Amino acid sequence: MKVVKFGGTSVASGPQIEKLTNIVQEDAERRIIVVSAPGKRTKDDIKVTDMLIDLGEKCIKGQSTDDALAAVIERYQSIAKELALPSEAIEEVEQDLHARLGFYSKADNDDQFMDQMKAAGEDNNAKLIAAHFSNVGIDAVYMNPKVAGLLVEGEPGDASVIPEAYEQLKALRDEERVIVFPGFFGYTEEGILTTFPRGGSDITGAIVAAGVKASLYENFTDVDSVYVANPNVIENPEEIHHMTYREMRELSYAGFSVFHDVALIPAFQHDVPVSIKNTNNPSSEGTLITARRKEENTYFPVTGIAADKGFSIIYVRKYLMNREIGFGRRLLEMVEEEGLSYEHLPSGIDDTSVILRTSQFSIDSENRLITRIQNELGVDDCYIEHGFAMVMVVGEGMHETVGLASRATQAISGAGVNLEMINQGSSEVSLTFGVKEREADDALQALYKEFFAKVTQ
Amino acid sequence: MKVVKFGGTSVASGPQIEKLTNIVQEDAERRIIVVSAPGKRTKDDIKVTDMLIDLGEKCIKGQSTDDALAAVIERYQSIAKELALPSEAIEEVEQDLHARLGFYSKADNDDQFMDQMKAAGEDNNAKLIAAHFSNVGIDAVYMNPKVAGLLVEGEPGDASVIPEAYEQLKALRDEERVIVFPGFFGYTEEGILTTFPRGGSDITGAIVAAGVKASLYENFTDVDSVYVANPNVIENPEEIHHMTYREMRELSYAGFSVFHDVALIPAFQHDVPVSIKNTNNPSSEGTLITARRKEENTYFPVTGIAADKGFSIIYVRKYLMNREIGFGRRLLEMVEEEGLSYEHLPSGIDDTSVILRTSQFSIDSENRLITRIQNELGVDDCYIEHGFAMVMVVGEGMHETVGLASRATQAISGAGVNLEMINQGSSEVSLTFGVKEREADDALQALYKEFFAKVTQ
Repeated sequence: MKVVKFGGTSVASGPQIEKLTNIVQEDAERRIIVVSAPGKRTKDDIKVTDMLIDLGEKCIKGQSTDDALAAVIERYQSIAKELALPSEAIEEVEQDLHARLGFYSKADNDDQFMDQMKAAGEDNNAKLIAAHFSNVGIDAVYMNPKVAGLLVEGEPGDASVIPEAYEQLKALRDEERVIVFPGFFGYTEEGILTTFPRGGSDITGAIVAAGVKASLYENFTDVDSVYVANPNVIENPEEIHHMTYREMRELSYAGFSVFHDVALIPAFQHDVPVSIKNTNNPSSEGTLITARRKEENTYFPVTGIAADKGFSIIYVRKYLMNREIGFGRRLLEMVEEEGLSYEHLPSGIDDTSVILRTSQFSIDSENRLITRIQNELGVDDCYIEHGFAMVMVVGEGMHETVGLASRATQAISGAGVNLEMINQGSSEVSLTFGVKEREADDALQALYKEFFAKVTQ
Repeated sequence: MKVVKFGGTSVASGPQIEKLTNIVQEDAERRIIVVSAPGKRTKDDIKVTDMLIDLGEKCIKGQSTDDALAAVIERYQSIAKELALPSEAIEEVEQDLHARLGFYSKADNDDQFMDQMKAAGEDNNAKLIAAHFSNVGIDAVYMNPKVAGLLVEGEPGDASVIPEAYEQLKALRDEERVIVFPGFFGYTEEGILTTFPRGGSDITGAIVAAGVKASLYENFTDVDSVYVANPNVIENPEEIHHMTYREMRELSYAGFSVFHDVALIPAFQHDVPVSIKNTNNPSSEGTLITARRKEENTYFPVTGIAADKGFSIIYVRKYLMNREIGFGRRLLEMVEEEGLSYEHLPSGIDDTSVILRTSQFSIDSENRLITRIQNELGVDDCYIEHGFAMVMVVGEGMHETVGLASRATQAISGAGVNLEMINQGSSEVSLTFGVKEREADDALQALYKEFFAKVTQ
């Protein structure tokens, strides 16, 4: 059986839900459908989740909720109308929203209440879609995550699944009807609704797919596939038809944003393959993500290239540093004590650099860290530079390909871009280059030309 | 004024000492001459220091010292004879050696006694050379390190200079005669003779040069210069006529062995330039080492290339490692707790490697470390591989040279060598490649061809 997840734009309107319905009908293996809240129909549209946050905040502030509530209901009404659902469907949505607003006085805190409000987006959409399925002859049922046993722990907005959930969800295998499952939230063992962090519906899909041991977790979104490079930088880049988890992870890290890579952990851990498909073009091949490569990829030794900006470099120099046992450890301790996580640690003989994401720094933490390094490590020199980008070349097995690093460095240099950092040696899957931010696009284009454009000409 | 140090082969025999004498006479600035113990005259010869160690050990074991003592005396006798020194010179050596053997019963411990014995090599040689200088008309004086105030601290065989020494040594500037100073040892504030670790006479020279604020520290040895690559791997490599301390450090690290790089710290710290010259070919330009480059080296963007074998890689993989604050620090803590010092730390997203010198490992420490990493860091995979070499391309300013990394990787790949690791990004002076040990010579040859052979053709 397959678990199929549809993102916000795939469930934003009646016509979109009809496409989804066709997709479900096409394949009898598509047995569990995880749905998001209605997303944007046009560029300037508002997501239902954002409308619900507005509604909840008005309630907390003691302002009138009438208009905000009406706006949410109107949005569901429009979907119900487009799908020609009976009026009871909308009445149920209204009742649900009133009940959630009524929960405000019972909630332990505002965050708990807000989780209830936000989850209404997916929950009501799942009910409407289940009703639509039944209307068009699919034997379908809405499944509440509490009933299904999607158990989580953690603070509001930051739920994480607990192992018992997988055990409970296994029972969904025995359901003969098509299950429509709302994404984005689960319940604690105390019965408190708690939402997942960013990528919430993707997480629900991955957990459910893992729980029922699905043969495939299909993730329907609004792009045909994952591309070998960012389409905002490269015109019409090649599609990736098959990649491994490791490749996906490395590319996500460097700015690939089709989905939030951490969301897929449950699928990864339970060895469920993931497929990225386009709701608006379901016949397109999409991108299949598996734990291991099925065959050698000799045509493209590189699977994808990516670049991410916003990196800083802490440079530290001390004569005879490499003879000082514990120097690197003490440096990392100070970085850690400022709550910073580092990305790379290139080292010379008498110097070392710590590369981290700039967003983690405040002016205070930056000054504090530099002062500590200077005072406590007795260094000869220490400073921070900002404005770097990390460019990654990713491909399973590339580590064994003689000449690949050379082709990549040559391509970047050929574009007149100076290499501030090269990191190869640990990952078997990637090669990372540090360049100045303003040169990142040039580097990406040069690498694309080297590894993809040449091959396909 | 210049401080001039002569190594073991430069003071191994009368004829060698005559060369040294000519060198001193050629330049009135050569005012302080630091000398080693007599080294090997031929390949199978025995160094006087080794003979003295044998003599000292026999004394400690209560064995007869007659033959060993006679051998040392004979060696000095041969030098004295070659230099036509009066018989008193040798009588003084004999008395000195007897006095040192007599110190055995007074020494606090065997190590202290052995330091006395070992230091006899330099000390007596300095006396003979001072006598020879006087004979040939150089107004010269033997200078005892205790009298000069070469103050040290630390255990026998592991002396390190204390700051007061520089203050005391400054007075040597006022000596009008040429000073002959024995290398290899100093005295603690309690008056105990203590020898330096490896590179002892180089260290003495650097300390004295720093103390008297010499305009140049000339280090005479038996090669014409430092070469851009190891002459055992590259036939007739180019000479390096000028390099910076940083370049020297990085090249020494990767197996350049003209001298022990740490020995030069005092000169480095006091900004005294160092010159490497050949006693047997003093007109050769030699190699000048300064803190900064005097001019742009556009002809050779690379100053030298070196390779060192005997490296191991600890590979660690854990899903989502890079989100785990403190992971790197904890890993380094375990490495440190095994008393290991690491060289490089290349990292991917979900994996990291620790590169260290294999010689530090025992089978026990290797197993202990792997077990700890597996148990305490909850990693998905962890293993150690041996048999790697680090190949370094060194050149001041190369970090800013677009295309240099590309040329280097291309050259190595062109030789069919796979790059196991590339580390660039911290040092402004070097680029490090990890390759399999068996491919290290190929990599070095390819780099030589790329950066030197091409240019000079």
